[in-house]
Amino acid sequence: MTGDNEVDIVASLRSLIGENAVLDAADTASRGAGIWRPDHLQAAALARPASTEEVAQVLRWCHTNRISVVTHGGLTGLVRGADAEPDQVILSLERMRAIEEINPQQRTATVQAGVTLQTLQEAAEEHHLMFPLDLGARGTATLGGNAATNAGGNRVIRYGMMRDMVLGLEAVLADGTVVSSMNHLIKNNAGYDLKQLFIGSEGTLGVITRLVLRLREEAITRNMAFVACDNFSHVAGFLRHMDRNLGGTLSAFEAMWREYYCLVTSPPARGKPPIAQDYPFYVLVESQGADRELDTQRFNNAMESAFESGLIVDAAISQSESDCEDFWGLRDDVEQTMHTGFPIVFDISLPIAEMHKYTSTLQDTLGAAIGKHKLWIFGHLGDGNLHVIVQVPPEEHTRLRPMIEQQVYAPLAAFQGSVSAEHGIGLEKKPYLGISRSDTEIALMRSMKAALDPTGMLNPGKIL
Amino acid sequence: MTGDNEVDIVASLRSLIGENAVLDAADTASRGAGIWRPDHLQAAALARPASTEEVAQVLRWCHTNRISVVTHGGLTGLVRGADAEPDQVILSLERMRAIEEINPQQRTATVQAGVTLQTLQEAAEEHHLMFPLDLGARGTATLGGNAATNAGGNRVIRYGMMRDMVLGLEAVLADGTVVSSMNHLIKNNAGYDLKQLFIGSEGTLGVITRLVLRLREEAITRNMAFVACDNFSHVAGFLRHMDRNLGGTLSAFEAMWREYYCLVTSPPARGKPPIAQDYPFYVLVESQGADRELDTQRFNNAMESAFESGLIVDAAISQSESDCEDFWGLRDDVEQTMHTGFPIVFDISLPIAEMHKYTSTLQDTLGAAIGKHKLWIFGHLGDGNLHVIVQVPPEEHTRLRPMIEQQVYAPLAAFQGSVSAEHGIGLEKKPYLGISRSDTEIALMRSMKAALDPTGMLNPGKIL
Repeated sequence: MTGDNEVDIVASLRSLIGENAVLDAADTASRGAGIWRPDHLQAAALARPASTEEVAQVLRWCHTNRISVVTHGGLTGLVRGADAEPDQVILSLERMRAIEEINPQQRTATVQAGVTLQTLQEAAEEHHLMFPLDLGARGTATLGGNAATNAGGNRVIRYGMMRDMVLGLEAVLADGTVVSSMNHLIKNNAGYDLKQLFIGSEGTLGVITRLVLRLREEAITRNMAFVACDNFSHVAGFLRHMDRNLGGTLSAFEAMWREYYCLVTSPPARGKPPIAQDYPFYVLVESQGADRELDTQRFNNAMESAFESGLIVDAAISQSESDCEDFWGLRDDVEQTMHTGFPIVFDISLPIAEMHKYTSTLQDTLGAAIGKHKLWIFGHLGDGNLHVIVQVPPEEHTRLRPMIEQQVYAPLAAFQGSVSAEHGIGLEKKPYLGISRSDTEIALMRSMKAALDPTGMLNPGKIL
Repeated sequence: MTGDNEVDIVASLRSLIGENAVLDAADTASRGAGIWRPDHLQAAALARPASTEEVAQVLRWCHTNRISVVTHGGLTGLVRGADAEPDQVILSLERMRAIEEINPQQRTATVQAGVTLQTLQEAAEEHHLMFPLDLGARGTATLGGNAATNAGGNRVIRYGMMRDMVLGLEAVLADGTVVSSMNHLIKNNAGYDLKQLFIGSEGTLGVITRLVLRLREEAITRNMAFVACDNFSHVAGFLRHMDRNLGGTLSAFEAMWREYYCLVTSPPARGKPPIAQDYPFYVLVESQGADRELDTQRFNNAMESAFESGLIVDAAISQSESDCEDFWGLRDDVEQTMHTGFPIVFDISLPIAEMHKYTSTLQDTLGAAIGKHKLWIFGHLGDGNLHVIVQVPPEEHTRLRPMIEQQVYAPLAAFQGSVSAEHGIGLEKKPYLGISRSDTEIALMRSMKAALDPTGMLNPGKIL
């Protein structure tokens, strides 16, 4: 791509959607590439359409001119799912930030794709409703990005993933066709459920421009505990015990292996240990309910019987909302893994029965494979989702990374684990897709890609 | 299609999967066409493969020989979604009835597609687990059919539809390719979520042969009430009130308009009225929990505050499990609509704010349009799903049906309602698909059909 062509792209897009709506290559390069990344964006242009029609205009022009398009939300993804090449156009939804409607009776929100998760959470609260998706990047991540990557987060065990919260959506196809499928209904079996095509496909099949999202009644009360288990089978048993005895109110079940617990409860972390640091496994458990007295009684009963049956050996039970925030603060203090080295973050999923064998093997073999390192394990255990973080010296990162990926991913094949529980594939995990998906599955994915984006212009090279 | 060809089909299929595994046209015609239908099956042959590989063999042969295939589960569908023509092959999953595994720790069931819903429900109970899908046809409907039609039923408000319970599946494509995507994980974002293609596509994109289903902890307690509301806005308010105050334990919210309540609580129905018959609206509300004492207290508190705020005007609260069964018995006694006339059953979905205007208009205008008739309205109100039944004299059915369909469906367009909440489209609702889906949406459905079934041999003519 020559300089002349770049000028053409910028000028052409400006003529379509306005002078200020399009950044040229130089201005684009002044922006950071995303969360926890030192590099900068690159692209021939960055288009910032203000409406679905403008998104369609950009795509139509790029389609005609055979230019690839990479769609950007809040750039909080962790798998290089939004990287662009210098000859490609970035399409950012940053100017599509309107909450079009909150409908308290239907319990739905209609939003443009560039609205951030936290903005919607707060808007729902004003109506005593809740948008239950929640994750650390809530202030920056957009709802369009959450949908395109099928985001998970902290309360999947109760409310499901983003896929389960999308009732309808509008998407623009590669050729600029607008598919408006803004369903507001919980049940709609009138033909194929088209929204499923776009949710979790990482911008490779279409650009999500608007969404209808399901809201829930706001939780009125919450109860939490930080507990210790003396072996992993007790962790698994405690999950079933709480799920069963909380009868529909269990809202989070987050596990931490000892090393992670010690990390986030020792200086320089600001968190203090709610219970002693010498147990092998810790769990943060949360129940969301509606009645302060009865819910507390139920929660305490469930904790008591867990103690009696030996499933847990130590516990701190929240006495206030501020205790709850402190507990979550420990869980979310992932930044501690950035001190003293370079953290490589993994997001895997595996059957709970295999989890202990998997993590023990990893703990045993990683040293032999890569030498000095730190290893932290924690995650949404209730969903079978573990985050594994391997920290290495920064100067060794490039050399060690492929070896570490091999150690983390390869054993998953044996028990149909997933190389991506919630972060997606992007470019980063593409070499490992075959661990979790068969050739036939990947061939079918390619058929879908060919059917919806025959020229391959949407987020090219990602996933497949 | 000539007689000679029919013989070829039967003989060829028998050579592939065995003599007894294939019925000829005459034997096929001895079988009934399905629930509540007086007619019989028709097809060139009915193949009953016993394994995924045999399903693949049948499809491969039919693909090569350009013969269309209609897949059959339990034939409990209500929209002519499984009708076959005399030159087509019916593929029945009736010999694929194995529950391959119940995994209590992972809380999953792995089943062949021909297992009935009730069989799985009972198998899960043996492990103190629950498969939460539930509907009247549970004894006959198959899990493959439930998935192919994205079945709904009585507890969608708590557990979602069938789509939400399928973790993985195996499907055979039109050309016989087996796509095995038997994911056991709650979270798996490794590429496109292929199972979504097959769920709810009514056998038009592939044949589901096996499923991995998510099980839940068995509910230990339940509380129910039958209540009366004096206007519709109180019904809607009562839904939010109970959802909010039951804090995650609400498991059903079924509404009945007065005429239906009277029908199922008056002779010849065996049900007795738990509360007086002169209110305009009735609701059956259910909460599933885990603690007899606390759950009952919570349920009664919520009912009490509903009374105090005037949302409900009369109520019978269950005192025993047998009361609960009686309450459900009333709700499910749809057979009463078959006395004294021919019932035409509708399954629609619409925003709750529009519901009363919609039903009032229907009650007002139907008489002028079709003359003497009976009209019953009830349904899964918590999901926005109403069942409308119009009963006419049997001899008038054929003449009146198109007029009634017009009256029921046409007004839904104005507020993006759905002509099919949970029953699907099949042949019956195909003329009305355009009320709920735009031309662009239908065009995208056609692209998907063309990508997965380019020769159009799978359940041809259904949906599109």
